[in-house]
Amino acid sequence: MKKVKVGIINVTGYAGVELARLLCQHPEIELASVTGRSAAGQKLADVFPHLSDINLTITAELGKVDLAFSALPHKESAQQILPLLEKGIRVVDISADFRLKDPADYVSWYGFTHPAPHLLPQAVFGLPELYRKQIVSAQIVANPGCYPTSAILALAPVIKAGLIGPDIIIDSKSGVSGAGRTLGLGTHYSEVNEDVSAYALTGHRHLPEITQELTLLNQGRPLSITFIPHLIPMTRGILSTCYAPLVPGKLTTGKDGEKQLRQLYLDFYKGEPFVRIAAAAPHTKHTWGSNFCVVYPTIDHRTGRLIIISCLDNLVKGAAGQAIQNMNVMFGFPETTGIGAPPVYP
Amino acid sequence: MKKVKVGIINVTGYAGVELARLLCQHPEIELASVTGRSAAGQKLADVFPHLSDINLTITAELGKVDLAFSALPHKESAQQILPLLEKGIRVVDISADFRLKDPADYVSWYGFTHPAPHLLPQAVFGLPELYRKQIVSAQIVANPGCYPTSAILALAPVIKAGLIGPDIIIDSKSGVSGAGRTLGLGTHYSEVNEDVSAYALTGHRHLPEITQELTLLNQGRPLSITFIPHLIPMTRGILSTCYAPLVPGKLTTGKDGEKQLRQLYLDFYKGEPFVRIAAAAPHTKHTWGSNFCVVYPTIDHRTGRLIIISCLDNLVKGAAGQAIQNMNVMFGFPETTGIGAPPVYP
Amino acid sequence: MKKVKVGIINVTGYAGVELARLLCQHPEIELASVTGRSAAGQKLADVFPHLSDINLTITAELGKVDLAFSALPHKESAQQILPLLEKGIRVVDISADFRLKDPADYVSWYGFTHPAPHLLPQAVFGLPELYRKQIVSAQIVANPGCYPTSAILALAPVIKAGLIGPDIIIDSKSGVSGAGRTLGLGTHYSEVNEDVSAYALTGHRHLPEITQELTLLNQGRPLSITFIPHLIPMTRGILSTCYAPLVPGKLTTGKDGEKQLRQLYLDFYKGEPFVRIAAAAPHTKHTWGSNFCVVYPTIDHRTGRLIIISCLDNLVKGAAGQAIQNMNVMFGFPETTGIGAPPVYP
Amino acid sequence: MKKVKVGIINVTGYAGVELARLLCQHPEIELASVTGRSAAGQKLADVFPHLSDINLTITAELGKVDLAFSALPHKESAQQILPLLEKGIRVVDISADFRLKDPADYVSWYGFTHPAPHLLPQAVFGLPELYRKQIVSAQIVANPGCYPTSAILALAPVIKAGLIGPDIIIDSKSGVSGAGRTLGLGTHYSEVNEDVSAYALTGHRHLPEITQELTLLNQGRPLSITFIPHLIPMTRGILSTCYAPLVPGKLTTGKDGEKQLRQLYLDFYKGEPFVRIAAAAPHTKHTWGSNFCVVYPTIDHRTGRLIIISCLDNLVKGAAGQAIQNMNVMFGFPETTGIGAPPVYP
Repeated sequence: MKKVKVGIINVTGYAGVELARLLCQHPEIELASVTGRSAAGQKLADVFPHLSDINLTITAELGKVDLAFSALPHKESAQQILPLLEKGIRVVDISADFRLKDPADYVSWYGFTHPAPHLLPQAVFGLPELYRKQIVSAQIVANPGCYPTSAILALAPVIKAGLIGPDIIIDSKSGVSGAGRTLGLGTHYSEVNEDVSAYALTGHRHLPEITQELTLLNQGRPLSITFIPHLIPMTRGILSTCYAPLVPGKLTTGKDGEKQLRQLYLDFYKGEPFVRIAAAAPHTKHTWGSNFCVVYPTIDHRTGRLIIISCLDNLVKGAAGQAIQNMNVMFGFPETTGIGAPPVYP
Repeated sequence: MKKVKVGIINVTGYAGVELARLLCQHPEIELASVTGRSAAGQKLADVFPHLSDINLTITAELGKVDLAFSALPHKESAQQILPLLEKGIRVVDISADFRLKDPADYVSWYGFTHPAPHLLPQAVFGLPELYRKQIVSAQIVANPGCYPTSAILALAPVIKAGLIGPDIIIDSKSGVSGAGRTLGLGTHYSEVNEDVSAYALTGHRHLPEITQELTLLNQGRPLSITFIPHLIPMTRGILSTCYAPLVPGKLTTGKDGEKQLRQLYLDFYKGEPFVRIAAAAPHTKHTWGSNFCVVYPTIDHRTGRLIIISCLDNLVKGAAGQAIQNMNVMFGFPETTGIGAPPVYP
Repeated sequence: MKKVKVGIINVTGYAGVELARLLCQHPEIELASVTGRSAAGQKLADVFPHLSDINLTITAELGKVDLAFSALPHKESAQQILPLLEKGIRVVDISADFRLKDPADYVSWYGFTHPAPHLLPQAVFGLPELYRKQIVSAQIVANPGCYPTSAILALAPVIKAGLIGPDIIIDSKSGVSGAGRTLGLGTHYSEVNEDVSAYALTGHRHLPEITQELTLLNQGRPLSITFIPHLIPMTRGILSTCYAPLVPGKLTTGKDGEKQLRQLYLDFYKGEPFVRIAAAAPHTKHTWGSNFCVVYPTIDHRTGRLIIISCLDNLVKGAAGQAIQNMNVMFGFPETTGIGAPPVYP
Repeated sequence: MKKVKVGIINVTGYAGVELARLLCQHPEIELASVTGRSAAGQKLADVFPHLSDINLTITAELGKVDLAFSALPHKESAQQILPLLEKGIRVVDISADFRLKDPADYVSWYGFTHPAPHLLPQAVFGLPELYRKQIVSAQIVANPGCYPTSAILALAPVIKAGLIGPDIIIDSKSGVSGAGRTLGLGTHYSEVNEDVSAYALTGHRHLPEITQELTLLNQGRPLSITFIPHLIPMTRGILSTCYAPLVPGKLTTGKDGEKQLRQLYLDFYKGEPFVRIAAAAPHTKHTWGSNFCVVYPTIDHRTGRLIIISCLDNLVKGAAGQAIQNMNVMFGFPETTGIGAPPVYP
């Protein structure tokens, strides 16, 4: 059988190179083309020695493929994707360019006018746990951001079930690779090591995406969401601690309520290959290098608040792994193909 | 002039040895005695090579001192302090044994019956920013916990001013030294490195202390506080991100409200040598190795919530440095004596 | 076809649990039994949440298997292996108990009398790059230590070729996971983070193993080897920097000599699936989580010394991965089966 | 008494800002002027929040001072220093521009023709342990590099005493701050974390400096030195492991030889305030944030080699602290003034 040909646009960032690592182990596809501007003309294995088994040269333009992953920054991604769509190529876009349904959001949050607002309705938000059916036939899949993946998977069950009030606080802690491979003082080793800080206090770009999806789950009723990301000294991993008031009377008090809550999560994610409901407070290390998201819901009985914690690897379930999961759904491969490896511990 | 003689009970933990580091540079006192069980009989400089300039032998029993710092674990601390108090020795207790005013709290949170509940009313909570006057003449100063110091300094101004509603969430991130020098799988290098996790989800022992002090600042009106600590892969530092709803009408909307909020903090901490109101989101690195606490208050205008972030070094302002600050107040030394060194960066 | 049944003795250490991670992805075998003393009776997935897909209970005794991996400490390993050998079970021993050919070495380096010295001659040193043929039919394969693997692969080609004099210095830098999962102050997070130190200055237990194998490669002529390991603040990875005087006249001077040297390594490791000759100074990160060993030979022209640097992941090529490579050779599976995944970067 | 006025040229690098941290605590001087190009016009405390107590504005030109510290890169440093020298200002140069005595070395190692070769003879190599007398009256003090400080202090006693043969290997491990505050992929957090690598294999710029000074100590007899630096994932600290053959007959065999060796070091560094001879393998953590250098000499009895390990903080004894030590010597202040603080542990 002929293998599906796939390509990676902008392989030289961390999401792009993580795609290459995972795709080179995928039995159903052929990694046929990888692009990158600054590194065009170089062998992929020379730029990234850990990929020495891949025999590909980085090119400026994408070769012939059936599906393209775009790992470009926002705005540039849409520009390069539009011509591909016209040729009928399917696209998984890791940038934010097709995640938001309201064209105005691109102006206010990303500072550009969307070049193809008419395509936004047909683009599918690439969270298989919520949109699996739509992904199957989508031409454009908008791969969710790393923070939104952790926040939405944490909160979806209780919002869907009407268990919580609208006052939601999402306090996220991320490793540094989420900030990408582009240099900056904020990701300079000596500045980040032995340090933690909050950032984007006036509004992180992942907030509208979280708000859009959680509001949909809330049947359109407005939510009041505060999302504060933090940078911590590690390379991979996101842990989101989510706080929301429990609607009185929805759960039995005491330990029984905790069991009901846990069962709600087990039911919601039943059969999901990449979401696990932990039995105790989870560690990002338990997801390191893998496509798994671990969710732990619990109750602060003193205050009647729910606390839901989720962990994932920002470059896998938060980016490249989820993109491949979407591809698997799009092409009808078993969903775990090529991305089922367990986390690397310790 | 004769120097004040001070001693450290249990010098071999991280708080104890940090006291030794700071006290050996203090010009007004003489470090006269250091105790430790397992290491009794050894030279302090042999156990801790970074203190090679200190010529002291660790003993089992405390020698003659004017003031003792206790760096023992809870329960043991009270037991060893009581005989000292009878001899008229002043004590700064780094354990929790004299922080809580309600004797019942020791049973429910620490699992022991307090051996001297009659002393609790006279013990002073050792946060100089709130209790400076009482510390001057105190015989027992209960040095606050590291998390409470960060949380109380962050929230005191707005609670005192009636600016926030009772729904408070404190999400804290701590370096590993806060867990002490005692071995455990949770502080084993390969387990903690490249990892973040929440812990104590059913209630951390620092919660009653936070609740007690913030409720007092709230004139006794009850607060609904959720406090979740997280362990992150660094040695020193705590960053607390505090969330609370702004009472409508208390601040002007928009940028002006931010200025008013900042001014409130500047006024509240006016003249305080160790609290700084940052102009931007702070980093724990900006407090590393020092007694400073940096506080940054801001407003989430989308939701009408206050976000107040505080940073400190858990072993200095969160333990040993604050203990010395208390001693300075007790003996009338200038408050920054011996603890005024700037943070070590990077 | 019936799968080969394998078991892991002492799955609860880092080498043991890494075996489990890799074996659960191996298509040709069935992980049938895992043992561990303290954790006996618990589900493997409960002790190690990253292995939640493995449905096995840890037992005190090994079940029925065709091959056993022993991840026990030395001395205990031999004791548990001997009865297995009598039953005809094949064994890959990750401990040191069958690596050294001279029974006296066990007394002087490990402090115990070997219980079965008659088996030492038939045990095969499990470095496939040197002993592949013997491994095929071996009943006992003595998996090399992590440091020896890095040192021997670095130096074998030049010793075999008679290129260097006997004065060899091996300066190795290791991540902390090499010290295992057992607690100790030396692996306590706050002690190791932001620290580097040399250890075992009077002789590390891996020295006799290095000496034995390099001397064999030197046709029995004695070598004068100094080996100093260092602990550095990371979890996985070993980098060994090896220094030795170049025998005059063996290589052309200048750049041409470097090419000859590189070619010697390319030839020596031709066809080897897990050894790569780097084109520039390598990074341990380029081997992280994988079974690859990267070797970089170069010349210090000022002094006429060779410098050979090797990198590997101490838990994979330095332990569990190499053990599985040996198993693959023993059972005639393609050598990369189950262990061919590229390194995880960054 | 009027305080000595000092200035820092290029305060915005790590050496420059470390000078500022230490100088603001120095009781005998006034930090009168700090320069920096990109940050000129900004408050020092705004660029570096940890220095919020310093009230100075960064300027483009140096103000009136008695002594200037130059923390500029090489070549630029000499250019800016020359006019100061003409005005009679004393200078401690942290760059390499006055360290090497042979003008040709600047061409071959640094790629520029020295602008004032006539000044090289009068510039004093600023290692107080070797050149204290000359520093007292020097106008230009060339502050040694971080690696050379560690290597020279480790090897000086045995070379001076004729104890070792000429074949010296220096294997150094450095934290990342030594690479400075300038951005680069090699110091990008996600690249350095969980990684170790050797670099500058064809010759590091600190090699000629090490060779110059050790050869002088060897009374001009040539040495054959290989120096390989490594980058390890921590912010501060250098550990150098030095290997050299012991000249037969110079030391008693066995434990007695070790004692003689240790005594040689104790004697050589007698009275030195910042060099400590450790009793066991040292850790860089035992020097963190301080001006101390810890040296540990031992013997590899199997091979007759000496192994000497030294540790220091690359930004203090390896840069800013040593520069202030030199200033103290130049102005007759007690040598430990302002830099006597013990290391910060853990």
